Amino acid sequence: MYFYREDLINMIVPDKPDPVAAKVMQEILGGHFGEMRTMMQYFFQSSNFRGTEKKYRDLLRGIFLEEIAHVELVQTTINHLLNESGEPGAGAESPSGAPLSSPVQQGANPHHYIIGAQASLPVDAAGNPWNGSWVYSHGNLIGDLLDNLNLESTGVLQKSRIYEMSSNKTFRETLAFLIVRDNAHQNAFAKALETLGVDWAKLFPVPNYDINKYPECRKYVEMGFHNAQFNFRLDDTLIAEVFSGKSPSRNGGELQVTPPPQGNPLPVMPELPNEHSPGTSDMNR
Amino acid sequence: MYFYREDLINMIVPDKPDPVAAKVMQEILGGHFGEMRTMMQYFFQSSNFRGTEKKYRDLLRGIFLEEIAHVELVQTTINHLLNESGEPGAGAESPSGAPLSSPVQQGANPHHYIIGAQASLPVDAAGNPWNGSWVYSHGNLIGDLLDNLNLESTGVLQKSRIYEMSSNKTFRETLAFLIVRDNAHQNAFAKALETLGVDWAKLFPVPNYDINKYPECRKYVEMGFHNAQFNFRLDDTLIAEVFSGKSPSRNGGELQVTPPPQGNPLPVMPELPNEHSPGTSDMNR
Amino acid sequence: MYFYREDLINMIVPDKPDPVAAKVMQEILGGHFGEMRTMMQYFFQSSNFRGTEKKYRDLLRGIFLEEIAHVELVQTTINHLLNESGEPGAGAESPSGAPLSSPVQQGANPHHYIIGAQASLPVDAAGNPWNGSWVYSHGNLIGDLLDNLNLESTGVLQKSRIYEMSSNKTFRETLAFLIVRDNAHQNAFAKALETLGVDWAKLFPVPNYDINKYPECRKYVEMGFHNAQFNFRLDDTLIAEVFSGKSPSRNGGELQVTPPPQGNPLPVMPELPNEHSPGTSDMNR
Amino acid sequence: MYFYREDLINMIVPDKPDPVAAKVMQEILGGHFGEMRTMMQYFFQSSNFRGTEKKYRDLLRGIFLEEIAHVELVQTTINHLLNESGEPGAGAESPSGAPLSSPVQQGANPHHYIIGAQASLPVDAAGNPWNGSWVYSHGNLIGDLLDNLNLESTGVLQKSRIYEMSSNKTFRETLAFLIVRDNAHQNAFAKALETLGVDWAKLFPVPNYDINKYPECRKYVEMGFHNAQFNFRLDDTLIAEVFSGKSPSRNGGELQVTPPPQGNPLPVMPELPNEHSPGTSDMNR
Amino acid sequence: MYFYREDLINMIVPDKPDPVAAKVMQEILGGHFGEMRTMMQYFFQSSNFRGTEKKYRDLLRGIFLEEIAHVELVQTTINHLLNESGEPGAGAESPSGAPLSSPVQQGANPHHYIIGAQASLPVDAAGNPWNGSWVYSHGNLIGDLLDNLNLESTGVLQKSRIYEMSSNKTFRETLAFLIVRDNAHQNAFAKALETLGVDWAKLFPVPNYDINKYPECRKYVEMGFHNAQFNFRLDDTLIAEVFSGKSPSRNGGELQVTPPPQGNPLPVMPELPNEHSPGTSDMNR
Amino acid sequence: MYFYREDLINMIVPDKPDPVAAKVMQEILGGHFGEMRTMMQYFFQSSNFRGTEKKYRDLLRGIFLEEIAHVELVQTTINHLLNESGEPGAGAESPSGAPLSSPVQQGANPHHYIIGAQASLPVDAAGNPWNGSWVYSHGNLIGDLLDNLNLESTGVLQKSRIYEMSSNKTFRETLAFLIVRDNAHQNAFAKALETLGVDWAKLFPVPNYDINKYPECRKYVEMGFHNAQFNFRLDDTLIAEVFSGKSPSRNGGELQVTPPPQGNPLPVMPELPNEHSPGTSDMNR
Repeated sequence: MYFYREDLINMIVPDKPDPVAAKVMQEILGGHFGEMRTMMQYFFQSSNFRGTEKKYRDLLRGIFLEEIAHVELVQTTINHLLNESGEPGAGAESPSGAPLSSPVQQGANPHHYIIGAQASLPVDAAGNPWNGSWVYSHGNLIGDLLDNLNLESTGVLQKSRIYEMSSNKTFRETLAFLIVRDNAHQNAFAKALETLGVDWAKLFPVPNYDINKYPECRKYVEMGFHNAQFNFRLDDTLIAEVFSGKSPSRNGGELQVTPPPQGNPLPVMPELPNEHSPGTSDMNR
Repeated sequence: MYFYREDLINMIVPDKPDPVAAKVMQEILGGHFGEMRTMMQYFFQSSNFRGTEKKYRDLLRGIFLEEIAHVELVQTTINHLLNESGEPGAGAESPSGAPLSSPVQQGANPHHYIIGAQASLPVDAAGNPWNGSWVYSHGNLIGDLLDNLNLESTGVLQKSRIYEMSSNKTFRETLAFLIVRDNAHQNAFAKALETLGVDWAKLFPVPNYDINKYPECRKYVEMGFHNAQFNFRLDDTLIAEVFSGKSPSRNGGELQVTPPPQGNPLPVMPELPNEHSPGTSDMNR
Repeated sequence: MYFYREDLINMIVPDKPDPVAAKVMQEILGGHFGEMRTMMQYFFQSSNFRGTEKKYRDLLRGIFLEEIAHVELVQTTINHLLNESGEPGAGAESPSGAPLSSPVQQGANPHHYIIGAQASLPVDAAGNPWNGSWVYSHGNLIGDLLDNLNLESTGVLQKSRIYEMSSNKTFRETLAFLIVRDNAHQNAFAKALETLGVDWAKLFPVPNYDINKYPECRKYVEMGFHNAQFNFRLDDTLIAEVFSGKSPSRNGGELQVTPPPQGNPLPVMPELPNEHSPGTSDMNR
Repeated sequence: MYFYREDLINMIVPDKPDPVAAKVMQEILGGHFGEMRTMMQYFFQSSNFRGTEKKYRDLLRGIFLEEIAHVELVQTTINHLLNESGEPGAGAESPSGAPLSSPVQQGANPHHYIIGAQASLPVDAAGNPWNGSWVYSHGNLIGDLLDNLNLESTGVLQKSRIYEMSSNKTFRETLAFLIVRDNAHQNAFAKALETLGVDWAKLFPVPNYDINKYPECRKYVEMGFHNAQFNFRLDDTLIAEVFSGKSPSRNGGELQVTPPPQGNPLPVMPELPNEHSPGTSDMNR
Repeated sequence: MYFYREDLINMIVPDKPDPVAAKVMQEILGGHFGEMRTMMQYFFQSSNFRGTEKKYRDLLRGIFLEEIAHVELVQTTINHLLNESGEPGAGAESPSGAPLSSPVQQGANPHHYIIGAQASLPVDAAGNPWNGSWVYSHGNLIGDLLDNLNLESTGVLQKSRIYEMSSNKTFRETLAFLIVRDNAHQNAFAKALETLGVDWAKLFPVPNYDINKYPECRKYVEMGFHNAQFNFRLDDTLIAEVFSGKSPSRNGGELQVTPPPQGNPLPVMPELPNEHSPGTSDMNR
Repeated sequence: MYFYREDLINMIVPDKPDPVAAKVMQEILGGHFGEMRTMMQYFFQSSNFRGTEKKYRDLLRGIFLEEIAHVELVQTTINHLLNESGEPGAGAESPSGAPLSSPVQQGANPHHYIIGAQASLPVDAAGNPWNGSWVYSHGNLIGDLLDNLNLESTGVLQKSRIYEMSSNKTFRETLAFLIVRDNAHQNAFAKALETLGVDWAKLFPVPNYDINKYPECRKYVEMGFHNAQFNFRLDDTLIAEVFSGKSPSRNGGELQVTPPPQGNPLPVMPELPNEHSPGTSDMNR
């Protein structure tokens, strides 16, 4: 069973609205290699696990737990990039009389304003809905690990590319945190394959990202987040039987299971009367 | 952040394999009105919540937390309906020499044997993948509540129909538990709309299911599960400001926030060498 | 604007339930070349029509109007193939205790029993949902006519194949009527291309179906339905400027615009208490 | 059977081309909660209706009939927003030599120019094709009514948001008419649930839109269109057994079945030679 | 079996990057009527061919072979429109510090930069993925030929519209070559239907494109490419039994089977370090 | 450019029709990890290749070329499993009068008889159409290689599972050939990663299949097909700079580039008059 404490896994750094950044950030949420995919993939793999090698099951479930918090972080980030991104005021009083015309004409995803009230959606950067056929859980452990390794590597790769699409601080801080955490998960699956005999030499991290290009990453690396596995279990776990010892990447260091990071408060989002959200205050009561 | 204790939210009652039951049970997991939809819908609604009426946000998130455990329960149920549903033994030694031919010829979903190793998938009863466009989070609170009410009502309706598709005990126990819990969630959203002024008279429960037709439901009703909201929060929640007082359904009773049910151990699933699952034991090490 | 008289465009011939026939009949409703496609394709083509050659627009809209009635006929046919196809009685009293198990195990589409109460769906014979990308309206008249000709030819072809999938009389009568009407629509689009210069020689009908293989077709051919265009307009139409004169097919005859056929009463479908349909009688009122 | 008189259900107010407005207007045509969905949903619900309570069936079919005319109105509106939105003249003579470059670079849906000749498509505002899985017809009357109520509420909500995306008059007039008609349909389904016992108090309309923000709506409200059900039946209907008496919304008034509105002529759309539409005049005949 | 010589079927004319042109060009690659569709459609039709009229099978396969080379040509064209379309330099040094922000804000498909490293994708101009349901192979020869004729006509039509979306030379040269080749394939399928009796009079080419509007086409017409069928067979083929004699189009000329065109070298594409592509040079080796 | 010699890459072993085997074999053709995916994935990766390390590009293209022949082999295999799988004779004369009823009632994919004339389709074993979003080409070489390795491993895994679904000889021979060839391609991508430093130890082949369970594989292994790369280039290739030396799998042996196998004649498929295929002989000519 699943329990919750109302804390975001990382901070939301304030900056101006940026609807195009919100649109491309959707890839990290609902894209083929986004956080919804990783969350659901590890969920299915841990529930479908066969056999008695519980340490691998605990590894899969442990990363699944963190991915739920990642989905929440990306949803919240997108919401903050969208918050009040239309013109202020109701329709009649705004300069153009059409307060949502500006983001739509500048290339925002119109669904951010039509379906949600300037809020995140289960779609990718091109507006395609998330699709269950992307989840991969075949029950062969090596196959699952290879695919997961591939998934986390693509996660870093795509986040590093999306990082260059806006210099917005809200946007980049979340990306930087997730790049370092994907690196940790890449290490986890690479290490699991090491326990089955592989020697990765200098292959990882994939891609070979230069931390100087993504300065927001530095503090997370300095805290050791690239070699840590956060433990969200309320009971015992065998995850450290896999996730410990020398990092499989050429960057070195020791893998360590640690408590989750200090949480961050969930921001209260402003009401948007011109989007009828939440729409209770404008009732005659 | 999300935490876990390795306990299933309900028991798995043992019975024989039933691949066709597993196929139709997929609707409850990956269908348009299945548990993956409810889980993701309430997740998006709670993350996208606007304004300060935190009690509604806590209600949405509280039900989301239970839905994660429901997804896990349905995955596990499907796995048990599939476990060892092929002929025993390796290909060459089995009577037909084709140990997976029997379930496929009798109408199983072939993907249960091809993609997974006799394991659950993010698809519906017709084999269509889960689709993000089904999730509905528009940020207007009344709109969200009406849709959720509709979603839980359809949940009960479809589960009561699927119940009649097999008399398998593993299958029916899970359905019965979920029918009663959907009823509770129907009560939660109906109650939330009562706080906004609606009088439901005798409309609910929808559909007007007769508990005598679903005998496995009785014990859950007797435990009051149709009027309970399990609390999975590790911190405070305002959920009882909505979920309390007289039930909005004609069946009466008092709504109560309670601790989660006693957990049930996750079964260890057998290895399936002829599906190469998990496939570590047959390596030459 | 669109008006209605409660009459089915053709009769429903009674016969026993046949859930597998209902499943394959879905292709005619929601398939790539089914009646929903023809209906929506001619709707878009007539609304999107450019220029002043109104006779072609009237032709497109005239066939669109009939296609709405075809969709209704196929929905009703599927419903009659499904009506009471589960075991009689409520769950507890039926022989197996699982009154919907039999159709599902024999290859029915489970969604016919889960989503609808033994009722038609906007899906094809493999259970895939109808998809808007199939509709083709590009605004080049010749392109539209060529595609429509192709669509109606495929309509006859697929119906003649589906005809051989069951000898159920409800099933075959509807198919036979539609085969003859698709032939008429094939003639309409072929004739429209004749007005632009083409000589079809002996190409049509495509496929070259032998009426003796589809005996239910004979009466419709004898009534001249293969050369008739039913007129559903309440105002004037120029359709006869295209649809008149010698048939473009080698079977000969004269094309004629005629009044719609005598209507047929819509059958009242029985309630299905074990599917909670319609579910009003079982409320305590 | 379905009959037609060539009249649009509402006027097309002339204004300049606005390709981005056309793109977002597609949500109203082919979106998850658009007019194609309402049309097909009520079509399936009325054809699949079980039992003898014909007044509800007549209600469902009555609204279905109007939705066909709504689809036609939105198609026509989109076409007028697109008409001649490229640069005038053929490729070689235009300033840039690429007369369709401008709308595409300014965020139009390129399919409006590639698939159709500046014409409407069965897709949503993000370009995703309409999907049959959105249609909901489960045969439980209360379930169907709750879903329809939800659908019409979302219809008003999304139209009120889209309204703020452009001040184009063609665009806003159609939206305003549809907002008021969705309100009427919301009243119809709310009233049908009142006949089953519900008291809506002050919940409706949802959302609680302020008519002063949508000035084009006023005249339709003054004509009573928010409390009217247009009757498109050529034979008798029991719709007034449901749709009559006091409005279920807090705005009050009496529900009334009325004849359809005075029709409006369908505009003839200009030819577009540089899109080869309709492409007959440029043949050597 | 399939063999390869590393030559592009047509030249790549150099010009500046044009990400919006790349986006719309995707329709020609992965759209409903694009080259992936024609390639796969003729592949399935030739593999599924029934009966002994080998000359038609050879025609289908012959055009399939050319379509593989067309897919490669369009992929390469898109890549050249995208090459180095971000700002030069790594993130930190670029003017905005976000070198990919510019194309995304100007309406590029963000997937061109996220999924691929400024590279082609199997999607259409609206970003929807290619879908197998578009392929049509029903085994009735006339039906297949009618559909193919329709497909090639739409190919010319859509390419002529896309041509007007940019004056970029890389873009237009590829389109012009493909317009002429689609014309040839239109002639091939029209001729095949002539052998079955049809007289097309002056219907073709569809659309009736004016070569003066597409000046890049002229040289290909002068080389006779509109009446040629390139022969990619290493063994004998009966294609000339269909593809010979007078052209079925009003433009006249003689159909001829010829050797493939002189090939063109595949350009080497530059590395993109800020997209980590190919990402081997930045490893510490 | 692409050239063809009419030879199948492997033999078709005759056996009885088996429509359910044809249905599951579709996974190998149009499934998420089927031959259409491998073909298109390596096609995009080779066309999108960046930089000057041509040996890797030649490897990708070399495997792409073989995959085209694999698609053709699987299409042909499915066709042979379906050939004449309905009852013999025309409708009226057959025992049931419905010659296609039998396969449909026994669980065949009805689309095999409706869309095609007992012919292969671009869909998977559950009838879902092939989807372009499955293709993965991100331009980071290590990412592409890891994904391809994963793809080929899943290919072997799924084929070994499907092998157990029927003992039909046509079915099993094709699967056995492809299992061995996927093993060779697994070796190719594993070797490519070895050139970048990885030591696979005893990880491969994945899964660790036992050749004694798949006796048809033995002859292909004895011919060395698991360590061979067939060369389909008509010009030079650098593929041997990667594909040579010791096999990366624990089974050992030397990797070798070899000529393609001796070809096999394409069987002529019988006409199916009751499916109107090809439908030319029944015209009055």
